[in-house]
Amino acid sequence: PPSAGRLPAKVPPNLQLRSAKRLLVSQLFQPFNLQVGEEAGWEGRAGEPACRSQKLMLQGGLVYPSVPGCYYYLPPAVRAMEKLVKVVDGEMQAVGGQKLNMPSLSSAGLWRASGRWDRMGPELLRLVDRHDKAYCLAPTHEEVVTELVAAQSNLSYKQLPLRLYQVTRKFRDEPKPRFGLLRSREFYMKDMYTFDASEEAARQTYDLVCDAYRSLFDRLGLPFVKVQAATGSIGGTMSHEFQLPADVGEDRLLLCPDGHFAANVEMLNGERTSCPTCGEKLTQTKGIEVGHTFYLGTKYSSVFNAVFYSAKNKPQLAEMGCYGLGITRILAASIEVLSTEDSIRWPSLIAPYQLCLIPPKRGSKEEEEGVTLLERVYDDLTEALPHLTGDLVVDDRTQLTIGKRLKDANKLGYPYVVIAGKRVCEDPPVFEVWNQNAGEVLFLTKEGIIELLSKVQVP
Amino acid sequence: PPSAGRLPAKVPPNLQLRSAKRLLVSQLFQPFNLQVGEEAGWEGRAGEPACRSQKLMLQGGLVYPSVPGCYYYLPPAVRAMEKLVKVVDGEMQAVGGQKLNMPSLSSAGLWRASGRWDRMGPELLRLVDRHDKAYCLAPTHEEVVTELVAAQSNLSYKQLPLRLYQVTRKFRDEPKPRFGLLRSREFYMKDMYTFDASEEAARQTYDLVCDAYRSLFDRLGLPFVKVQAATGSIGGTMSHEFQLPADVGEDRLLLCPDGHFAANVEMLNGERTSCPTCGEKLTQTKGIEVGHTFYLGTKYSSVFNAVFYSAKNKPQLAEMGCYGLGITRILAASIEVLSTEDSIRWPSLIAPYQLCLIPPKRGSKEEEEGVTLLERVYDDLTEALPHLTGDLVVDDRTQLTIGKRLKDANKLGYPYVVIAGKRVCEDPPVFEVWNQNAGEVLFLTKEGIIELLSKVQVP
Repeated sequence: PPSAGRLPAKVPPNLQLRSAKRLLVSQLFQPFNLQVGEEAGWEGRAGEPACRSQKLMLQGGLVYPSVPGCYYYLPPAVRAMEKLVKVVDGEMQAVGGQKLNMPSLSSAGLWRASGRWDRMGPELLRLVDRHDKAYCLAPTHEEVVTELVAAQSNLSYKQLPLRLYQVTRKFRDEPKPRFGLLRSREFYMKDMYTFDASEEAARQTYDLVCDAYRSLFDRLGLPFVKVQAATGSIGGTMSHEFQLPADVGEDRLLLCPDGHFAANVEMLNGERTSCPTCGEKLTQTKGIEVGHTFYLGTKYSSVFNAVFYSAKNKPQLAEMGCYGLGITRILAASIEVLSTEDSIRWPSLIAPYQLCLIPPKRGSKEEEEGVTLLERVYDDLTEALPHLTGDLVVDDRTQLTIGKRLKDANKLGYPYVVIAGKRVCEDPPVFEVWNQNAGEVLFLTKEGIIELLSKVQVP
Repeated sequence: PPSAGRLPAKVPPNLQLRSAKRLLVSQLFQPFNLQVGEEAGWEGRAGEPACRSQKLMLQGGLVYPSVPGCYYYLPPAVRAMEKLVKVVDGEMQAVGGQKLNMPSLSSAGLWRASGRWDRMGPELLRLVDRHDKAYCLAPTHEEVVTELVAAQSNLSYKQLPLRLYQVTRKFRDEPKPRFGLLRSREFYMKDMYTFDASEEAARQTYDLVCDAYRSLFDRLGLPFVKVQAATGSIGGTMSHEFQLPADVGEDRLLLCPDGHFAANVEMLNGERTSCPTCGEKLTQTKGIEVGHTFYLGTKYSSVFNAVFYSAKNKPQLAEMGCYGLGITRILAASIEVLSTEDSIRWPSLIAPYQLCLIPPKRGSKEEEEGVTLLERVYDDLTEALPHLTGDLVVDDRTQLTIGKRLKDANKLGYPYVVIAGKRVCEDPPVFEVWNQNAGEVLFLTKEGIIELLSKVQVP
């Protein structure tokens, strides 16, 4: 029997789907959806090598190539990125992080002061403005943030530690941009800069931020290793990388199987084959760098005179650290390490959408009943679990079989898929529910679905 | 009597304030806070004229000047901006907007194809990469988005309208950057691009997006006028601006007092003094442009061949529109039009923090009792109204008088200020509550405060 508020029964079922504010696959801007049956130019620009995440992200309509090393982030990728940023914000604010936002245009003078205008070489994108003043597009903000803090007169030791961070677009003119979002020329990075009153305090900050990174990757369900790393052009006296082991990774790591030692080979002098602590044979693996921490000491604070006033009211250089997370790189790296050859798997917390609902095929005998029941599942879910509004999508391409749409849903990596199949005609109606990350299929009533999804977290 | 969970009475009261995860003014990175008693270089760079919002935003530690026309957005400004973006997202998604994110590096070829590589002149920031390829930093994305849509083969009329938008950093080499965030060289803009199957449909989209802009400014409580405007370098056949009347505005507007006519003088040929509809004398006012809409027709779709397939399966050029909102400019313009000479007033919905709590002065006889009670207000508020967590700040600078801190809170524009004054010793304890936007002072119990704040909306 038609429920209250439903449209009259004469309206075709898939027009009913469109009548309410429900998200419909047919209306989503996803090249995947637009080019059914085609493999949309996933090999990228001519000659560019592809990896699994690049292929899957192009195929699935998450990104689209623009100029070399630059991508359009399409709507599902933006959703995933915004969720990831919320999770990162939570972790950063839990360790006292305060979010700011610094300019991309960075004066040559600032970079000359630190010596990096020359040292960074062709990785720095440079330009002049209408007055012929020289700038670079900042790939990182040590100089810029230190100038800000140096400008605050009367900064007291009582106000330290200062832990400032941003999530912004960065620029780096990579010699070989490749692997999609894994190595691009424009990318989003979370960069935190910390200012402490003593070396001891700065080391506590360092450990605290490393713990926040651990917590982040644990919550995302990403297997990572923390390795000793070279300080490179950033500088400082201690550095670690957070790496996701993956064949496509560009870093080579040496790991002690018992966890006593882990390092990026680039920081080792010569060959090392056994663990310096326990003597075990080290194993080698490749990794994708997703986070990088640096203990900077006074390298930048001394250049820009970033001082605070001590308890004795003496000016003293701040002890600094900097801490990066590759936001867009984490999206791609997650897909790289979690997915199968042809199906995206997301960390549940940041999947663009949590649930895809698949109504019966047009003209099938379950059509009428199935569409009505699925609408009710959608509406009751958003009522019972309002935080999931926006995370539910109906695949209304009812000209396609359920099987074809399930295959697409599989490819795109919705954590849950609910199908109105033959058993919707039972009393009570039963739906087929795919829990993708658990790898199981359940048969549940509407109430069972609500119960199952009540455990889903969105940031 | 000390409540359960409080620290032992021997701990100094303002250490108690620090013991829990409460936001404390003394720990916030606000130059305002850091430079008590100083007016932190608000006049900006040498010779740059200042306006009210620029002065207040610099004084209040919302922004700090970097290279000319570029600003650090400091933590409270980032909070306000993130709230504004949420409100904008809601309005855009309510009209079917899908959010994407396009690169800043934009190839010269694309801009040459549209003719804007030359036409934009020195406003375009240009650079070459390591391979000597020429790019600009996109100030707007008509070319870039049209190329994306043109690349989607098989786009069907059934998938239209497409309403794609982004909120990203834009670059424009202004000849005279000034007035802080009102005219800067780096800024955040929301830009939507729409693709329709017919002129009629495109005009419906145009009206719909204009209505969304009205709704946005109404929700922010900002008085605006929608005026006819010139199409400028963007082009197209129809354009409107959303303007906030203000003396510092750089646009001159002619308005019919009865609302029959409103236009930017730049789009009128010669002088016009009376309304073309009703003959009333037009009044002139200055305005800050905060939104701009363009009906583009096929100006860009014809250049890049952005076609869809009609019901008869014929390729047809999409009818386009584009729609901008100056995100960072809206922040400054809001402050410009709502504030007094020396006190920031925010649209309530996007105030960085909703409430400032002021405990008694150190050493006063209310200190012990007041701190304890204020802690309870803070904790009970976050429990009863969890969506306000993060919106409450304690001004723990208890070395300062209540009066001094109230003055600061006034300047910074918290919509609500709760003071633990002499009446906290009454039974039940009574707090002094300033409702800044209503311009009233109330005396309320803790329960009264929770009741009052239960009406506060955060996006």
